[in-house]
Amino acid sequence: MKQSQLFTKTQKNAPKDEVSLNAQLLIRGGFINKEMAGVYSILPLGLRVIDKISDIVRDEMNKTGGVEMQSTALQKKEVWEKTNRWDDKIVDNWFKTTLKNGTELGLGFTHEEPMSNLMTSFISSYKDLPIYVYDIRTVFRNEARAKSGIMRGREFFWKALYSFSKNKEEHDVYYEKAKIAYKNIFDRIGLGNKTFLTFASGGTFSKYSHEFQTISDSGEDIIYIDKEKNIAVNKEVCNDGVLKDLGLEKKNLIEKKAIEVGNIFSLSYKFSEPFHLKYRDEKGEEQFVYMGSYGLGISRLMGTITEINNDEKGIVWPEAVAPFQVHLLSLSQNEEAQKIYIALVKNSIEVLYDDREISAGEKFADSDLIGIPYRIVVSKKSLENGGVEIKKRNEKESKIIKIEDITKEIK
Amino acid sequence: MKQSQLFTKTQKNAPKDEVSLNAQLLIRGGFINKEMAGVYSILPLGLRVIDKISDIVRDEMNKTGGVEMQSTALQKKEVWEKTNRWDDKIVDNWFKTTLKNGTELGLGFTHEEPMSNLMTSFISSYKDLPIYVYDIRTVFRNEARAKSGIMRGREFFWKALYSFSKNKEEHDVYYEKAKIAYKNIFDRIGLGNKTFLTFASGGTFSKYSHEFQTISDSGEDIIYIDKEKNIAVNKEVCNDGVLKDLGLEKKNLIEKKAIEVGNIFSLSYKFSEPFHLKYRDEKGEEQFVYMGSYGLGISRLMGTITEINNDEKGIVWPEAVAPFQVHLLSLSQNEEAQKIYIALVKNSIEVLYDDREISAGEKFADSDLIGIPYRIVVSKKSLENGGVEIKKRNEKESKIIKIEDITKEIK
Repeated sequence: MKQSQLFTKTQKNAPKDEVSLNAQLLIRGGFINKEMAGVYSILPLGLRVIDKISDIVRDEMNKTGGVEMQSTALQKKEVWEKTNRWDDKIVDNWFKTTLKNGTELGLGFTHEEPMSNLMTSFISSYKDLPIYVYDIRTVFRNEARAKSGIMRGREFFWKALYSFSKNKEEHDVYYEKAKIAYKNIFDRIGLGNKTFLTFASGGTFSKYSHEFQTISDSGEDIIYIDKEKNIAVNKEVCNDGVLKDLGLEKKNLIEKKAIEVGNIFSLSYKFSEPFHLKYRDEKGEEQFVYMGSYGLGISRLMGTITEINNDEKGIVWPEAVAPFQVHLLSLSQNEEAQKIYIALVKNSIEVLYDDREISAGEKFADSDLIGIPYRIVVSKKSLENGGVEIKKRNEKESKIIKIEDITKEIK
Repeated sequence: MKQSQLFTKTQKNAPKDEVSLNAQLLIRGGFINKEMAGVYSILPLGLRVIDKISDIVRDEMNKTGGVEMQSTALQKKEVWEKTNRWDDKIVDNWFKTTLKNGTELGLGFTHEEPMSNLMTSFISSYKDLPIYVYDIRTVFRNEARAKSGIMRGREFFWKALYSFSKNKEEHDVYYEKAKIAYKNIFDRIGLGNKTFLTFASGGTFSKYSHEFQTISDSGEDIIYIDKEKNIAVNKEVCNDGVLKDLGLEKKNLIEKKAIEVGNIFSLSYKFSEPFHLKYRDEKGEEQFVYMGSYGLGISRLMGTITEINNDEKGIVWPEAVAPFQVHLLSLSQNEEAQKIYIALVKNSIEVLYDDREISAGEKFADSDLIGIPYRIVVSKKSLENGGVEIKKRNEKESKIIKIEDITKEIK
């Protein structure tokens, strides 16, 4: 894409009321726009990142046998009353609205209830199970305070997968598969070495749930990590009994602030009972479906990646989620740069081509702020030296390479 | 995809309160689920159709120079008060909600206001223009009655592009480009020969707007078509003055019911004035930005395609938007069918493979209802006759072809 076609501009400063680093950098780079506290529109550069993250998530969910659908935002009171989660006193972050006839509706903050309800239409026999269904959609949470940029939004992208299994044994096999899928996701988007499987409260229906916590000073959670065993425990549940249960020793634990980027739960019969979600087993006997839920904050991942990958000049995107692979800067050499642009696009390389008539200094500053992995500069000097100047965003040194070697250098 | 992995099942009957043909067929086929009147979740088969339509729309919008972003559902009162469209007495289909601190918010039913507001951050000079920005997202409309299935939803997928031009001349060039892009979309999704560019009310800011109306008895609009000139006039504006203005004659017009699938508007300065959306021209003088808006109902298109392409057995999807290209039915020949399935997938052919243990009759009925363009049957008989039986959904005759000829036959 030509930068002249991209309507966003970088900004020297983020809005004064924006206190979080992730939103500051993403706003300054032109990835998001703050509509109000906790509500950000996703601008073209940001949408490319969100799409990259979503596609990786999709791929890993599909590999586990997941099937994608799209649930609705508008939610019916009757469905949520079945689990006693309609009442604002019990769930404190509902957005509610009303139909013209006065019927009260909610905006989905999660989808266990409608998914369980939906499955009553499709599950009747053991032959229908297991089912793994997910959606990637906007959810709404009426946060009293929204100060963490896109890490705790009132409207944000969220992936949720729900599993429907015949029994605990079948569920447990999938639950372990999901853990691996999540690990793959964090590895692929560049957060693998900072993200820990973390034991957390299981609620009334299961001993533990599992969170995926990424170490960061901007995190709202405290976790205790056993680096040797590569697992962690959320402070909320970290007591002597739990440590003993998990075979961990206090002296081996390191305390860290962390961002909860995902969580997975064994739901057992918590939802299938109120919805009468049953199937007939091979003996013809009715059994409740055993459920699990697997959440992942897509917008929050973009925020987390930004919090972790930046320097004083701007964002440093990991290649897999960068909005483009190459930032091509023409320093008054648009004729030559245009040729390189076309050649790279033909080679399926995603290029942001800065064809604007602004100073070299502005182009360099913009490029560092936006943080695309490879910067290629076409200047009079580079051409005299036999090609283009190429530099990785996360390295200091640049080098001159021949124009015909660019594709090889990048791939 | 294996059909055993797809959790949806076809249904003999749609819900009794579902009066529209499109929703009846889409529910029975397992494409959508009715959550409440006007609110449908999109099931895996339906999501594949929505994605196909969206990708075609995206491609045509990109070709006009459009850049994609993602606006928000939650809307700020102050932004809409600028154009006097916040008041429920003026806009009668708002869904409203409130933050915990009592601040009233709206759910976007369209996005002219937030887009104009956004652009004040990015437009300052003539060098910034033109800008063409679009999003494909869920919008919310609080319809008093929602009886047309997914053709008039309370929550639905909608594409909106907004154009920002230096002046009317620049705008007019893009407006004509948009007309062509829309024509391309309707041609590509198989509605081309039934969809007419239709003159409609322009409001206070422009003489006419243009609708794209698809002829269908289930349509809510009446249009008058001049087949020779390949244009139409909406009944709402069809009077002697307008006909004269457009050079049309009453005797050449045919009255038809039609579905409004898209509309494009010249907005002139209607939004740029209240938002002070201005730029400095080459002489340094301030000018208002000239705007246009270009809407398209993505969910409504799925409904329209369904209304038009069906027979007594079910849906007949046009190839470009079908959830899969091939429906592979194994009649107790899963070993052979599995090999064919793998070979087709390897050849990048999208296959729904019915590997379930149900009767041949049920498989045929399901296949006709779901409406995938090619049906391939692997049976003992077909194998004895030297291959598989292939039949197009919109043709009566089937034929036997060799297994190695399948790919050639389809592509």
